[in-house]
Amino acid sequence: VVTGQDVLSRLRGADPRVLPRVVTLVENNDPRGLAALDELYRATGRAHVVGITGPPGVGKSTLTASLVERIRESGRRVAVLAVDPSSPLTGGAVLGDRIRMMARHADPNVFVRSMASRGRQGGLASATAAVVHVLDAAGFPLILVETAGTGQDGTDIASLADTVLVVQSPGLGDGVQAIKSGLLEVGDVVVVNKADQPGTNDALRLLRAGFALGHPRDDRVIPIMATDAISGAGVAELLAAIDDHSTWLDDTGNRSLRRERRARTEVLAGVRSALDAHFTTRRNESGAVQDAIARVVRRELSPHQAVDSIVATLTAP
Amino acid sequence: VVTGQDVLSRLRGADPRVLPRVVTLVENNDPRGLAALDELYRATGRAHVVGITGPPGVGKSTLTASLVERIRESGRRVAVLAVDPSSPLTGGAVLGDRIRMMARHADPNVFVRSMASRGRQGGLASATAAVVHVLDAAGFPLILVETAGTGQDGTDIASLADTVLVVQSPGLGDGVQAIKSGLLEVGDVVVVNKADQPGTNDALRLLRAGFALGHPRDDRVIPIMATDAISGAGVAELLAAIDDHSTWLDDTGNRSLRRERRARTEVLAGVRSALDAHFTTRRNESGAVQDAIARVVRRELSPHQAVDSIVATLTAP
Repeated sequence: VVTGQDVLSRLRGADPRVLPRVVTLVENNDPRGLAALDELYRATGRAHVVGITGPPGVGKSTLTASLVERIRESGRRVAVLAVDPSSPLTGGAVLGDRIRMMARHADPNVFVRSMASRGRQGGLASATAAVVHVLDAAGFPLILVETAGTGQDGTDIASLADTVLVVQSPGLGDGVQAIKSGLLEVGDVVVVNKADQPGTNDALRLLRAGFALGHPRDDRVIPIMATDAISGAGVAELLAAIDDHSTWLDDTGNRSLRRERRARTEVLAGVRSALDAHFTTRRNESGAVQDAIARVVRRELSPHQAVDSIVATLTAP
Repeated sequence: VVTGQDVLSRLRGADPRVLPRVVTLVENNDPRGLAALDELYRATGRAHVVGITGPPGVGKSTLTASLVERIRESGRRVAVLAVDPSSPLTGGAVLGDRIRMMARHADPNVFVRSMASRGRQGGLASATAAVVHVLDAAGFPLILVETAGTGQDGTDIASLADTVLVVQSPGLGDGVQAIKSGLLEVGDVVVVNKADQPGTNDALRLLRAGFALGHPRDDRVIPIMATDAISGAGVAELLAAIDDHSTWLDDTGNRSLRRERRARTEVLAGVRSALDAHFTTRRNESGAVQDAIARVVRRELSPHQAVDSIVATLTAP
């Protein structure tokens, strides 16, 4: 159902069951999904991908849901890919928020998908990127990728998204954490959500001071705004800031720079992961690798010398 | 001071400053350290390496210190490599224990070194293995490697050690955690430390039941013993169990099997990390890699097709 020349037309056709099936096959690394992706990939590159990240508890899912409403009001279709936090401590709460967002499922112009990053080799870099390509080929002009802002995933989003939205909440501690974690360095737009709570102005001030000290990406002034996702206050302005950034990317040539970087990151991550699988499967070890290991066992080579000799054979021009 | 043909004789000579210097250079991946290691490696393979792992708070450092005392009473020299837990939450307490152990520094037949695993690429697999080679070449017949039993490090120790000692403490929760974490699967000797506390017999029973259900390594009955590292109760018996395991490894041919596995793990981890560095440095990208990425940007190839073509060139026989 999802392979062959007609997969693109089926994906963009009237049957609402095709897209979720293709996404599932791609997400599971199924050979049929990979074949479909090879077909679909040439039809990608039109979507604007917004990464939404930030520490647990700042209301990312609620803000995403609120953004989806504004985007629909602007008449555009939108796809949401929610990458579950791998921490079992926060998973529950975030999923709770998410269920409300899922209620929008009834609108055929909103596609919502949740996927687990836990235990996935390569994390965001592989499965998420592949699913984004499917959503892009399916014709969504906007794709929101919500990811837990913890560990590697928070900063990995920068290699996947055209616009990175970093979400914070009032409270100086969060701001300090954000500065430490490197999240701010990847932000194109920064939001202090839960702006109904005390401390919002302090948080805005701290973040502006942090950006003034740091080196913002691309020599651009980073918008730092306040939202209250539950009441919707500030969310229209946030969508305008995201659209402004999209225009800026096109006007300055930065979109193609980022796209090239994205392609490079995705390909090299795939190469690493494929080589990893290659070398960890003993039966795939080449004679040169087995010989080098045997010489290490006999102490004719140090491990470091063995590594050098193997790498030299692998990376010869 | 640490290179050339005479590094081995200097390392085993009277100057106590040579060993710590070589260890520091090796730990820091300094080219002089790597050169020394290439020289020293052929003199390795005589030490018995004991990995000591277990969850935070079970008294690993105190038990290690107590083992060091018994080993010295048996007339043997011993080196201790303590790999810091990467969690800042427990680092302080463990380091507190460690300082007491450091007091043994005055004994020239005990070498103690602490190293940080945090932020180190490849973790235990690279720096720790390299330092163990130096201590082995320096002539220590016993090397104790104490590592936090959290995350990957706890099970990684199995690819580094001849004998893996898994430390638990009374309390059913710990036992259940150990079973879940996979720590028990790598244990050659299991200890319930803090045996003066209530629940010790329950913990021993739970662990024995867990092993009866599981598949112990190498079809060997795993000793499950109780110690109280502070009073020293049970520690002589623990050292005897470690020595028994060493004899068993030699008698059954398992030592050479483990050593081959260890060499394989170390070399392949090095290859992966070298390839990773190779591909993330743009100037090292081969023409084939750059060409494939450019074709992905032009959407002539999907990322998956690009990965396949690059990997095919790298792994050709």
